[in-house]
Amino acid sequence: MSLTPKQLDACVLVWLDEAREQILNAMQIPLQVSEKTNARDLVTNVDRSIEQFYVQKIQHLMPNAHIISEEGYGDHVESMDGDVWFIDPIDGTLNFVEQRAEFATMLALYHDGEPVCAWIMDVIQNEVIHGGPTLGVFENEQRLSKFENRGLAAGLIVVSGARLLSNQMCLPEIAQTALGFRVYGSAGISYMHVLQGRAIGYISKMKPWDYAPGVALAKTLGLSTSNIDGNALNMLISNSVVVSTPSAHEEIMRIEKQTNGV
Amino acid sequence: MSLTPKQLDACVLVWLDEAREQILNAMQIPLQVSEKTNARDLVTNVDRSIEQFYVQKIQHLMPNAHIISEEGYGDHVESMDGDVWFIDPIDGTLNFVEQRAEFATMLALYHDGEPVCAWIMDVIQNEVIHGGPTLGVFENEQRLSKFENRGLAAGLIVVSGARLLSNQMCLPEIAQTALGFRVYGSAGISYMHVLQGRAIGYISKMKPWDYAPGVALAKTLGLSTSNIDGNALNMLISNSVVVSTPSAHEEIMRIEKQTNGV
Repeated sequence: MSLTPKQLDACVLVWLDEAREQILNAMQIPLQVSEKTNARDLVTNVDRSIEQFYVQKIQHLMPNAHIISEEGYGDHVESMDGDVWFIDPIDGTLNFVEQRAEFATMLALYHDGEPVCAWIMDVIQNEVIHGGPTLGVFENEQRLSKFENRGLAAGLIVVSGARLLSNQMCLPEIAQTALGFRVYGSAGISYMHVLQGRAIGYISKMKPWDYAPGVALAKTLGLSTSNIDGNALNMLISNSVVVSTPSAHEEIMRIEKQTNGV
Repeated sequence: MSLTPKQLDACVLVWLDEAREQILNAMQIPLQVSEKTNARDLVTNVDRSIEQFYVQKIQHLMPNAHIISEEGYGDHVESMDGDVWFIDPIDGTLNFVEQRAEFATMLALYHDGEPVCAWIMDVIQNEVIHGGPTLGVFENEQRLSKFENRGLAAGLIVVSGARLLSNQMCLPEIAQTALGFRVYGSAGISYMHVLQGRAIGYISKMKPWDYAPGVALAKTLGLSTSNIDGNALNMLISNSVVVSTPSAHEEIMRIEKQTNGV
């Protein structure tokens, strides 16, 4: 059985609604929170149960697909050949725990390294940005319009707060050049700002499940995507990821090259 | 005629609903945007018309009150004696223009320098945090519960992006000590995060209309408020304002003193 992207999109939107219900119900009782690498890198019972939910759904729908996922219920994937899913059950777990808001649940499907379809849901706002190359990009039922190709000085840039503070990826210079910068603490929420045209770009260093959905949707809209050196992303490893308007992308690459004396 | 705080609160909530309607209607047609001091300091036709709307309402309701306001339709106020209103018609004008979201409309009334009542409305979300010392603090109709007195390492701090980048008020050290930091680009939206218990504090350098409403509501909830030196705020001038849990406030003052070698 092979689904069209449209059928697949409709199917996953139902999974997201179910996941959202489960997340909201789980928030009614105390969360079980544990630290992964440190106090800023958390995992909860909800991250785990939602990932398991998605893994089961995917394995039932596409038994031959490979799964790259945050909490370890996926596969050890060493190639982007064939169908590869990315799962981030709760993106922005610190916001989830501290704010009970401003977090996302995200999925993406790539085939032979190219995006097929992706989904980013702001769980509390009940907004989902979804689509892919053959479908276009939608916010709920509404098609997202083409972005304006603005440069850094003409728009807001979203960055990783931790990377900015530790002076990585020229983020202080880039933030200073932009009209303004924002820090939201969730890749999904940050990508939503860019896809909606509210920000001209987002820069952070992230794991594949953090960026695969946002990169898929951004590519579909014609935004530029690369690592901080301007090279294509290796979707199997952590990357310093730049997603922005083409104009801002050029400027970011120029700042990067100047600062590193290339 | 003298209104009780409860009557006043009910009255101003009606103004806010009217202001919100006007703002949403004005967003349907192109904004007239001008720069004040630079490209990051904007004013729109909506800032002006909403301020005039509030000034008229206040002058009708309390003709002897003084008004401190952002766009110049208020008074030249040189004392906090008697009734003093603060108006910020659109707080976060850059977000208003760029994002069409994440901005606030805010008011506060002080009497002889003490808060009487204040209002911060997230216009797009249609959420208003309001109240004062005799009423308590409410988010729409729901009373906000007492915050947990957490320290810096146990919570998120919201800061001014521009002040962080230019290394003011020890913001890099404070942000590094906190569990995480966020930048939202609107004082009103930032204060809402603190009042809701989603962040443990907010630090920025601001004009009186930017901080008077947030400080009034924070004081009512028992949060600590001061300038960055730990002194009481002079409500008639710009201040480096710290609003946080008492524990975080102590730590912020300690970092400030250590860094400045006091």
